Amino acid sequence: MVVVMTADATASDVDHVVAVVRDAGGEAFVSRGESRTIIGLSGDIERFTATLNLASLPGVADVVRISVPYKLVSREHRRQRSIIRVAGVPIGPDTLTVIAGPCAVETPEQTLAAAQMARAAGASLLRGGAFKPRSSPYAFQGLGETGLKILAEVREETGLPIVTEVIDQRDVDLVSKYADMLQVGTRNMQNFPLLQAVGAAGKPVMLKRGMSSTIEEWLMAAEYIAQRGNLDIVLCERGIRTFEKATRNTLDISAVPVAQRLSHLPVIVDPSHSGGRRDLVLPLSRAAIAVGADGIIVDVHPHPESALCDGPQALIDSDLRELASIAQHLSPLVGRTLTPAPVAARA
Amino acid sequence: MVVVMTADATASDVDHVVAVVRDAGGEAFVSRGESRTIIGLSGDIERFTATLNLASLPGVADVVRISVPYKLVSREHRRQRSIIRVAGVPIGPDTLTVIAGPCAVETPEQTLAAAQMARAAGASLLRGGAFKPRSSPYAFQGLGETGLKILAEVREETGLPIVTEVIDQRDVDLVSKYADMLQVGTRNMQNFPLLQAVGAAGKPVMLKRGMSSTIEEWLMAAEYIAQRGNLDIVLCERGIRTFEKATRNTLDISAVPVAQRLSHLPVIVDPSHSGGRRDLVLPLSRAAIAVGADGIIVDVHPHPESALCDGPQALIDSDLRELASIAQHLSPLVGRTLTPAPVAARA
Amino acid sequence: MVVVMTADATASDVDHVVAVVRDAGGEAFVSRGESRTIIGLSGDIERFTATLNLASLPGVADVVRISVPYKLVSREHRRQRSIIRVAGVPIGPDTLTVIAGPCAVETPEQTLAAAQMARAAGASLLRGGAFKPRSSPYAFQGLGETGLKILAEVREETGLPIVTEVIDQRDVDLVSKYADMLQVGTRNMQNFPLLQAVGAAGKPVMLKRGMSSTIEEWLMAAEYIAQRGNLDIVLCERGIRTFEKATRNTLDISAVPVAQRLSHLPVIVDPSHSGGRRDLVLPLSRAAIAVGADGIIVDVHPHPESALCDGPQALIDSDLRELASIAQHLSPLVGRTLTPAPVAARA
Amino acid sequence: MVVVMTADATASDVDHVVAVVRDAGGEAFVSRGESRTIIGLSGDIERFTATLNLASLPGVADVVRISVPYKLVSREHRRQRSIIRVAGVPIGPDTLTVIAGPCAVETPEQTLAAAQMARAAGASLLRGGAFKPRSSPYAFQGLGETGLKILAEVREETGLPIVTEVIDQRDVDLVSKYADMLQVGTRNMQNFPLLQAVGAAGKPVMLKRGMSSTIEEWLMAAEYIAQRGNLDIVLCERGIRTFEKATRNTLDISAVPVAQRLSHLPVIVDPSHSGGRRDLVLPLSRAAIAVGADGIIVDVHPHPESALCDGPQALIDSDLRELASIAQHLSPLVGRTLTPAPVAARA
Repeated sequence: MVVVMTADATASDVDHVVAVVRDAGGEAFVSRGESRTIIGLSGDIERFTATLNLASLPGVADVVRISVPYKLVSREHRRQRSIIRVAGVPIGPDTLTVIAGPCAVETPEQTLAAAQMARAAGASLLRGGAFKPRSSPYAFQGLGETGLKILAEVREETGLPIVTEVIDQRDVDLVSKYADMLQVGTRNMQNFPLLQAVGAAGKPVMLKRGMSSTIEEWLMAAEYIAQRGNLDIVLCERGIRTFEKATRNTLDISAVPVAQRLSHLPVIVDPSHSGGRRDLVLPLSRAAIAVGADGIIVDVHPHPESALCDGPQALIDSDLRELASIAQHLSPLVGRTLTPAPVAARA
Repeated sequence: MVVVMTADATASDVDHVVAVVRDAGGEAFVSRGESRTIIGLSGDIERFTATLNLASLPGVADVVRISVPYKLVSREHRRQRSIIRVAGVPIGPDTLTVIAGPCAVETPEQTLAAAQMARAAGASLLRGGAFKPRSSPYAFQGLGETGLKILAEVREETGLPIVTEVIDQRDVDLVSKYADMLQVGTRNMQNFPLLQAVGAAGKPVMLKRGMSSTIEEWLMAAEYIAQRGNLDIVLCERGIRTFEKATRNTLDISAVPVAQRLSHLPVIVDPSHSGGRRDLVLPLSRAAIAVGADGIIVDVHPHPESALCDGPQALIDSDLRELASIAQHLSPLVGRTLTPAPVAARA
Repeated sequence: MVVVMTADATASDVDHVVAVVRDAGGEAFVSRGESRTIIGLSGDIERFTATLNLASLPGVADVVRISVPYKLVSREHRRQRSIIRVAGVPIGPDTLTVIAGPCAVETPEQTLAAAQMARAAGASLLRGGAFKPRSSPYAFQGLGETGLKILAEVREETGLPIVTEVIDQRDVDLVSKYADMLQVGTRNMQNFPLLQAVGAAGKPVMLKRGMSSTIEEWLMAAEYIAQRGNLDIVLCERGIRTFEKATRNTLDISAVPVAQRLSHLPVIVDPSHSGGRRDLVLPLSRAAIAVGADGIIVDVHPHPESALCDGPQALIDSDLRELASIAQHLSPLVGRTLTPAPVAARA
Repeated sequence: MVVVMTADATASDVDHVVAVVRDAGGEAFVSRGESRTIIGLSGDIERFTATLNLASLPGVADVVRISVPYKLVSREHRRQRSIIRVAGVPIGPDTLTVIAGPCAVETPEQTLAAAQMARAAGASLLRGGAFKPRSSPYAFQGLGETGLKILAEVREETGLPIVTEVIDQRDVDLVSKYADMLQVGTRNMQNFPLLQAVGAAGKPVMLKRGMSSTIEEWLMAAEYIAQRGNLDIVLCERGIRTFEKATRNTLDISAVPVAQRLSHLPVIVDPSHSGGRRDLVLPLSRAAIAVGADGIIVDVHPHPESALCDGPQALIDSDLRELASIAQHLSPLVGRTLTPAPVAARA
């Protein structure tokens, strides 16, 4: 952390900053330049930020943080990139893991059909929402526990472990009974009680990036989960909000290598919600794999025209073989192998 | 709602759209133009949006919504702008209501001193956070119920009703025991279980705009609260996230008249969190009053240099008289009177 | 300027940075902290930024600039805020100057009628475009020199000096023959040859903020003009591009006090182009005056329904008296007087 | 184009809109719904937009454009995607063309070395700036004609045709004497006189997307060039401005398939300026090729630590082979072949 003094700061202003820092147990190094003085700090920077209000002291022009505000999830904490296992299915640096399924669970038939589509598309994990956060209170909100039961049934049938969203901390235990991985959605990325609850649940977590969160805020949200003792976290880039309206969100493809450099956690991409358009799912899936994502998560639906949620972006039958082929052939070029689907328990 | 067909849509594509709409109980009006056909729809549009996936039908280029997706909070629902009363203190079209207090409750002394500053600044309501949502898990998270008790004690002393934030739906009952108005913060604007819980709590609610939410999404979030039978909602513009980094957020001053035109709910402005800088609070307060806001909410702190939260933006003693003077003299120019502070119970 | 070293930078990395800076004639001060070393630089920072590629040196994590990249227009260069005179009409800290007129000059009658509306609205300067930059090549591009002649004729008639846009550096001499102030539009804020040409033209310049430019970039663009010996520059905030689509742009009202603090140049606001809606012009004008703007610039049109450019945002007759009244009564509350209109030469 | 009437529009308001449109030679189709009436228009929509101010008419709530505001560059104008040839080197749907070179031309030696690096990286075209638009007037502005001569000399030596930027319409003839392709930079995307000048110059043009331009505005800018009879235009996505500051800009990877669907023009990607960081160039190059870009343009520099412009993002020797390998092996997976470099004239 660096304290930049104003051009007209006095020597006693400088001494005061140094004294405040030292009183708090930190170290301060003064550098006097031609036009202004700067003070480098070291010590427990997080605590300084939280409790010392250095920017308010007389003569202080700016306080510049030069280290990252997260620890457990940072690459400095663990150089080696992590492999997270979801009921045995790996997500990490050596593999490409495809997660697919319907945006929302609607019926047993639709969910089973979608899971079979997911397998055909190369998926090894099944996604599907039983609790849906919707901008409008008049939109379909999900089937709740009924949906979770359908997912569990389809897991039995197909062997695909389940990734499903939790939107209310009171439901974390319930969802954990059925799910293999808990998903925290974009609107809840800074719902701190929920982050703490999923952190304590003992299940792997997929943390979607907030639609207007910086990469740093995303990693700080992951830190909330990690602080509860759970480092089985997968980050998911799903597009950010910008001025461009041709796509629902703007996929921030650069966020993948940037987050992988800052954090040891796996980073996957959601090409379906980024673009919000079916015709973009395959190109964006290719881009995600090529940029080095550890996986992708895509919407599929047997009858998108009657989907209760986000139908316009669901892949349909004819796209599946192409997605499987992309995942198969592109992975080796980035030093990965496609994660195979588990064998069905009933098979 | 208007369905726009592609240039090469066939007559049978058009007929299919019409049939789908009519099957769902709606009406469809076809307009054939030179280069393309459009179909106007009427009926239960919300249901169409939620269940008919018109954009997926063959020959459909676009589906354009032309009515608003909220009802109870809309100006069409109630032409007259609403007056919300917080323990008797009005917020609405004829008054200018100032809310002030510390960002976070730290000690009884600090809170009382801040409340006295608030009164000096022309405030009739006291703000103060006992539960703080913080981007970093290492930052001060608030005193919890201890903080609520301090607020209640200070209310006794000063007569100022309390506005305080709730960040976890499990705390809504607890916070409601002490607070006169529940605040939902920017990070929770789309925390739907929380919105529903505060909607059911029987207390007025202040709903801050999500830092990257459109005005429409903000009103849809208010609709979630209203749906639980609570129309005592005050909207609070607090700055949006943009590319400009000279200020913490960009105060969207235009949102005030726009939201007042779309909704009957009062709209206030938070000049402290918008700018994140003390030197901007007074200019932005003047702008907010002049644009026609129904109130403002500002941070004050007796010792901002040691504040545990957001010290750099807190007003200090010398600013208070000027804020009171602004509120007093600017209000009549926009046809309002400054809401007087209630008399202290103990006075 | 501060060079932040990586956690694993070696002593020889640090020495190398110091040597590079000293070779270039600068000074370097090393501060060794617990976890990392920082190096403060002083000397000719602009040149360092332009020629030394410090960020590429081994062991360098980041290079943080701590001084502003503009000089002539900065408040450090001139503490006193400037007063710019446009054919005698002042724009500066003691006055509120209203500029009004049609978006585009269409006919002599329309321009004269609009100028009379401008006077009725309290304006002392006439705006009007003869050259129009339009996103679509199929839109009306302005009357060119014919438009300039109409403006000059209307100036004769009404006494109002002329502010008009120049979009091509080849036209600077031509436009300067007629105009009292040259306007550089939002799309040309970083058209550097144009900035240099208007800098050399010897006329006051109004520099609109680029719709996605930071305040710093705006001041750097002003520096381009200033470098050619022209400090008669007025900055104009006209809304920035954000995700919110309820308004054409988002008026960044905070930019007024921020820019006034960083630069000695006057700062005015364009409430017409910010909102793009007539119903927002009066509220945003009030906000602009109250925040402390040195002036406002508004569109008026005698027949907005047939305007060739931006009709939807033009004020009409019934709004004029209210605008004049706002300007008259709000100015004293911010320590200003409304700039009176010059007397017509022919009067 | 669709005119949406307000809920309380009268029959005579509707008739008035219809009359205005018919007077202007257009057709109007009225659809009366339950809650509101909409009017579909057809005819010369561009002219309506430019001259009829329909949004100002009584009873009109909104005017929604449903066709694109560009023609010559649209896919509707020409279904087949175009192949542009730059001195014989193709850019189009069947190939992947790599353009590489130094950000700025500094010396003959540096430029020749960079060109040799470009060849090693798989490039068939040489980029290099002789005129540099810089945010700061104190930064290096390029060598001008001296730089162009160096480029021409290096073309002789290496056989690589030249792509170079023009920033002033007065220089278009000069630059055209040396360049094989004219580049219009992001800051000039809406510099309309420059667009018209390059449109008339008879050379292929590379049009970079404005850093805060929508895809639609980008295509309208291309239309300005096309209107002057020049359809040899290549679009270049180079990152947009967003709230995220971890990268210099946010590469809008989705813009590639979106623009290719709307326009027949080739679309390439600049991974160097998007990210502004060398470590992102290879991952973003892979993403660009995989998403289906028709080419990429990258910065290389023999000594990035002493580059006069954008050194931090230039590729260095060890990256070149990897880029060539990526271009070679990824292209076939998207149905393309890498465009071979021309043979050097002197070879």
